[in-house]
Amino acid sequence: MSATITAFERSPDRGRGLARDMRVRWALEEVGQPYDVRLLSFKAMKEPAHLALHPFGQIPTYEEGDLALFESGAIVLHIAEHHSGLLPDDANARARAIAWMFAALSTVEPPIVEREMATLTERNKTWYDERRPMLEGRIRDRLDQLGQRLGDADWLDGGFSAGDLIMVTVLRRLDSSRLLDEYPNLSAYVERGKARPAYKRAFDAQLAVFTAQGRT
Amino acid sequence: MSATITAFERSPDRGRGLARDMRVRWALEEVGQPYDVRLLSFKAMKEPAHLALHPFGQIPTYEEGDLALFESGAIVLHIAEHHSGLLPDDANARARAIAWMFAALSTVEPPIVEREMATLTERNKTWYDERRPMLEGRIRDRLDQLGQRLGDADWLDGGFSAGDLIMVTVLRRLDSSRLLDEYPNLSAYVERGKARPAYKRAFDAQLAVFTAQGRT
Repeated sequence: MSATITAFERSPDRGRGLARDMRVRWALEEVGQPYDVRLLSFKAMKEPAHLALHPFGQIPTYEEGDLALFESGAIVLHIAEHHSGLLPDDANARARAIAWMFAALSTVEPPIVEREMATLTERNKTWYDERRPMLEGRIRDRLDQLGQRLGDADWLDGGFSAGDLIMVTVLRRLDSSRLLDEYPNLSAYVERGKARPAYKRAFDAQLAVFTAQGRT
Repeated sequence: MSATITAFERSPDRGRGLARDMRVRWALEEVGQPYDVRLLSFKAMKEPAHLALHPFGQIPTYEEGDLALFESGAIVLHIAEHHSGLLPDDANARARAIAWMFAALSTVEPPIVEREMATLTERNKTWYDERRPMLEGRIRDRLDQLGQRLGDADWLDGGFSAGDLIMVTVLRRLDSSRLLDEYPNLSAYVERGKARPAYKRAFDAQLAVFTAQGRT
């Protein structure tokens, strides 16, 4: 039974793979599962049909038979639990990989999104220049700690896992800043993620949505 | 094998149960598992011994035999997976309950924490009064959507689950604002959570840490 996910009809990042469907596409590619994509306009995302699938009117969603899920973290975890390749077999290592998924989404991503939102919505405000170092400081606090933990390892805890998959996509949101450049081991970590064949297939698939609209 | 969790030696909320150990205590009470608590000073949280357990130097952590976990969401999920009472038996309902855990932590909590941080660190800034309505607007967007979805149901998806446990603790962080008062069904939802005997036992346990220091 093939799954159907939703994605932006017109991705705000112009095909750079920063939207959250990228995580789900990557996970499905890692485990070798085919999927269909239903594209949504911004208008359709706020209409009742989509709100029934996603109470916060966002993408991605995941439909598979009778199951409808939202939240990219939950979808990736669901995929990881039902197919091999994204979670270790050892029970403790599995729990730790899941902890890294939560860490990426609850601890590392929020200050990154906060800075993004300020750039988008407060750039012309008088306080923007004074607040920016504070926002970047919060991100650096997390990157310092994450970089310390990663050290010279390839992945966060043993082999590549769903925790790395989520973390790499979270760190990629810093692409438009130079913040990650200050952390060579984290930059290399992100590049390692991007070099995976499954990542490339997922990236190409989301890019194809953008290029198909003649908007390159 | 009894678990050991960590919590603040001196909780910044003065025993109001808003720190993230509350989630883990509540989960352990719901499933009827005893636990030990190791209290940490702010200084100890940033020392190597604790950073080995929690890369971001926070509480709670969870130790059980050879397993050491961090991130309250991951810990609650681990408890829910190994004991009955926090996740439905039906596979699809289980996946949806986990989606609500991620939604609470990744979608609902970040704007609430952002407002909290602004109140703590930017209250005396010239821009505070202008930014506050914007921050509250982002919270209201989420509460509007969450309240719509909950409707007049008792819990987010069928019976009480780990998703409700996390969501109630996230919404409780709005206690010091009046924002939740605008949403009678969400206020009643939080009160339903707080009325659970397991919640009360967990709340009393964290409060006892505070009162034991003669700081009432």
